[in-house]
Amino acid sequence: MDKILRINMGAKGGPMFKTEPLGDYAGLGGRAMTSAIVSSEVPPLCHPLGAENKLVIAPGLLSGTSAAMSGRISVGCKSPLTGGIKEANSGGMGAQTLARLGYAAIVLEGNPEGDDLFKIIINKDGVKIEKDNSLKNLTNYELVDKMKEKYGDKIACISIGPAGEMKLGAASIAVTDMELRPSRHAARGGVGAVMGAKQVKVIVLDDSGLKNREPKDLEKFREANKKWVEGLTTHSVTGQALPTYGTNVLTNIINESGGYPTYNFSEGQFEGASKISGETFAELENKRGGPGAATHPCHRGCVIKCSGTFYDKDGNFVSKQPEYETVWAHGGNCGIDDPEVIAQIDFLDDTYGIDTIEMGVTIGVAMQAGIAKFGDAKAAIELIKEVGKGTPLGRILGSGAAVTGRVFGVEKVPVVKGQALPAYDPRAIQGIGVTYATSPMGGDHTAGYAIATNILKVGGFVDPLKPEGQIDLSRNLQIATAAVDSSGMCLFIAFAVLDQPETFQALIDLLNSCYGLSLTGDDIVALGKKVLKMEREFNEKAGFTREHDRLPRFFYTDPIKPHNQTFSVKDSELDSLFNW
Amino acid sequence: MDKILRINMGAKGGPMFKTEPLGDYAGLGGRAMTSAIVSSEVPPLCHPLGAENKLVIAPGLLSGTSAAMSGRISVGCKSPLTGGIKEANSGGMGAQTLARLGYAAIVLEGNPEGDDLFKIIINKDGVKIEKDNSLKNLTNYELVDKMKEKYGDKIACISIGPAGEMKLGAASIAVTDMELRPSRHAARGGVGAVMGAKQVKVIVLDDSGLKNREPKDLEKFREANKKWVEGLTTHSVTGQALPTYGTNVLTNIINESGGYPTYNFSEGQFEGASKISGETFAELENKRGGPGAATHPCHRGCVIKCSGTFYDKDGNFVSKQPEYETVWAHGGNCGIDDPEVIAQIDFLDDTYGIDTIEMGVTIGVAMQAGIAKFGDAKAAIELIKEVGKGTPLGRILGSGAAVTGRVFGVEKVPVVKGQALPAYDPRAIQGIGVTYATSPMGGDHTAGYAIATNILKVGGFVDPLKPEGQIDLSRNLQIATAAVDSSGMCLFIAFAVLDQPETFQALIDLLNSCYGLSLTGDDIVALGKKVLKMEREFNEKAGFTREHDRLPRFFYTDPIKPHNQTFSVKDSELDSLFNW
Repeated sequence: MDKILRINMGAKGGPMFKTEPLGDYAGLGGRAMTSAIVSSEVPPLCHPLGAENKLVIAPGLLSGTSAAMSGRISVGCKSPLTGGIKEANSGGMGAQTLARLGYAAIVLEGNPEGDDLFKIIINKDGVKIEKDNSLKNLTNYELVDKMKEKYGDKIACISIGPAGEMKLGAASIAVTDMELRPSRHAARGGVGAVMGAKQVKVIVLDDSGLKNREPKDLEKFREANKKWVEGLTTHSVTGQALPTYGTNVLTNIINESGGYPTYNFSEGQFEGASKISGETFAELENKRGGPGAATHPCHRGCVIKCSGTFYDKDGNFVSKQPEYETVWAHGGNCGIDDPEVIAQIDFLDDTYGIDTIEMGVTIGVAMQAGIAKFGDAKAAIELIKEVGKGTPLGRILGSGAAVTGRVFGVEKVPVVKGQALPAYDPRAIQGIGVTYATSPMGGDHTAGYAIATNILKVGGFVDPLKPEGQIDLSRNLQIATAAVDSSGMCLFIAFAVLDQPETFQALIDLLNSCYGLSLTGDDIVALGKKVLKMEREFNEKAGFTREHDRLPRFFYTDPIKPHNQTFSVKDSELDSLFNW
Repeated sequence: MDKILRINMGAKGGPMFKTEPLGDYAGLGGRAMTSAIVSSEVPPLCHPLGAENKLVIAPGLLSGTSAAMSGRISVGCKSPLTGGIKEANSGGMGAQTLARLGYAAIVLEGNPEGDDLFKIIINKDGVKIEKDNSLKNLTNYELVDKMKEKYGDKIACISIGPAGEMKLGAASIAVTDMELRPSRHAARGGVGAVMGAKQVKVIVLDDSGLKNREPKDLEKFREANKKWVEGLTTHSVTGQALPTYGTNVLTNIINESGGYPTYNFSEGQFEGASKISGETFAELENKRGGPGAATHPCHRGCVIKCSGTFYDKDGNFVSKQPEYETVWAHGGNCGIDDPEVIAQIDFLDDTYGIDTIEMGVTIGVAMQAGIAKFGDAKAAIELIKEVGKGTPLGRILGSGAAVTGRVFGVEKVPVVKGQALPAYDPRAIQGIGVTYATSPMGGDHTAGYAIATNILKVGGFVDPLKPEGQIDLSRNLQIATAAVDSSGMCLFIAFAVLDQPETFQALIDLLNSCYGLSLTGDDIVALGKKVLKMEREFNEKAGFTREHDRLPRFFYTDPIKPHNQTFSVKDSELDSLFNW
């Protein structure tokens, strides 16, 4: 992982590539790498779909090693959805494979002339860029089948579906999992649209003949990894809740808390929650059986295995086990309580290449506008299909919640910096509201997952209904997350790391023994701050001010049931978040 | 004009109104009035379609008097198109009538519950607000016919068409002219969408039984008005060019300069320009004849009479004489060179209630996306009709160029602060680029019409192709314009005022004799600065920074024929504009 692959898609006479040493980017991985390259090389005022934007794909610092949970890959660019800097990361096999191939980053630069579509093949022998217009309009699942046929099943694919080709604001970048399903997504911020603008349909990674990366101190690394796995498998969230029920274990918990946004953020509890809970899905999946039914890892080296596989009653594959955010966005947020429908929609989102959060929130906004009725599952499926077909209505919806709100004149549009809010109402869970408002990423739960401490009582407890303590909570989580997102580690490790000092130490030991360093906890904090600072500076140059670090007005004016509260963290407090 | 009419559309149990003395707003008119009320009463971060936004309608300081050219009415709010403060003004009979009725402003506040539509009738006896759902979806022309039938032909109407009811970003507010045609529009910034959100279809003004406002010093006022009219009728632009050819006299001039944006701002000259020039239109109109064919005033007291009336070859009314900006937006910018088609589109824009600039630029962007071919006049008409019908495609287009660019993934979108740029390319006419970039209104030519000095050599000459002197030029024009927009005077008076000190003095004398004041030129400048300062402060609180005072990237990177230049005024210079 000692080089950067730069591909100039806009080179005269056709795309060209070169490899470079890391230079100033040495020592960076994942989000730190993507945000460093974007912030130093992309003009903040460029058009996100223009030739000046760059799409950076980077495995984390520990990706490609034998460290457990190290399979996250980061994708960065100027976001077409927010207009600010973006890092979206994904599980699947992309990170491990790219890291074993030795690349610390792929940087797609420039835009081709004309409308040809390209594929990029990377293996141990090098890089090949080929025009392939036969791939046009293929869905992700169709595309991956074709790639498998041609390049065998030892590959990993990073690809866009029709949504990315259409350059829609909700377009994701798909990453294949261990079964070569394009079920993992760097979903947020329209990163797929930037890949579409670069006219790259798929990057095929083949690490055949290559081994895991060698840590500098193999013995210490093995020792640290053992403690690391121990810590993860013994914590109640990562050792029990997530393996058993997946992320959707949250449905009942969040609904119970009164912070489950229902009917486009109009209520805080959904009467149909139990029908779509993690418990219900797990029961269904266990009953139906099949490979990887209720427990399934998305990448090699995962020990949490929070995923699963959803088969229909006849045993046919429907989709991966839908994640909590997906179940909420397409479920409670739209008043839909049918697991079968949600799984079908999950598949459609994955194969068209759409962010499930953005899409579900958008359909909620469309329902608010009267385009369909809340609870109308059939209509919801049809609306997603419109996106796949690229009809005018589909393009509106595929452009995300903010644009859909504009087009249909809807006032209640739950977005921050143009990006749809996830599955937690900030009026009932104030800490997550602070993260939504202030994260350089726009409305994003992963950027500082206050739910951990507000609701799950991990890393202490801060009362979710009160403004006190939320700034400190979100600040610390945002810093920690920026560091974790740079390591290649799945964010779910944070539950164990927050609660168990020895597990945090094991993570530091992994980094130190891998790179021959002697980092301390303070260095990890410093890395997180450095990443956030770069991101904030980019956004400032792109025109963002403290006024963009606010929730939409209705969170301040309209109380929500059952707590009948509004968001009450003061503006001046929000403005203090990045004063550290 | 000593009172403000406040109408609370969101009052429990139905809309309520009250009249108030001017209080802190005394001495303000037009844009100064709307911007003062909006900036002090509207929360800058509110949703433009929400209950917290206000729609302010204000005649100018001299409106309702016998002063020539005093018929401009200002409409202000937080703009759904730009997210910033907005003042859009219009000719027609609204200003004179509202001023004679004694109102310095109408302020529409709150949003009704439910979806009833309302009309507001104002006459010498008072104010009436009536629910009238029979008006739903009427076009402006249909609506005004209905109002005329009911209230007689002595009225003036301020109304929205279907676009305003749909709350589209390109929705205008129509004002009837002397023939009771809804042909004059406060068009820009989506002000019609805000009226739509307030669910007010029409304000019917009837000044029967009322006289012109009495100036404090009638004799001095008459004397000043005489000099005023003399100055206007002798200047070559206001005395000859505008009466003879209307605003469309500019087509040949701007095309000749190489600053005529063609094919969505891809070239600077249009081969079909002569087919749609003011000269061609005037010839056609004169040949066909009919009432007000080639020369026509839009309001009582107009002595420039730049308007006209377009009849088809059989003598049937088609539309008012399309303005230069309209002819360009729907003509050269879309590669269309047929006057008949442009007149038909002008009528459709007026009757649906759409900003012709925003709409033409949007269709140019749609053509760039391949939705229709450049030059396809039939397709352009069909696209406008989609807006009227409110289909998904129509709603996209009706939401303006920025949204259309987002939905169709187009990079070349000529907007500033989300508002479409008018009919002058800033690469060939650098001064107007400074105004586009820095005006608090977003992309707007009227805010500081540098064309006057860059091209028409009015008020001196500044070389349009060089960056030197453009900041001073735009600054002075923006200040002067903010003052003129507050006076109720048509902006076209500026040509004479800039060139003839005695005509400027006559304007000051009109204000002084009307109000019993002793203002000097410095006071007028101070008023202009005050208005701009309020507007800039509002925008800053709404999240605007200097990074929003920039042109879209392609103006800096893509040179344009025939001059092969880019926009070359430096960012640091743009940032100095408001340092006075």
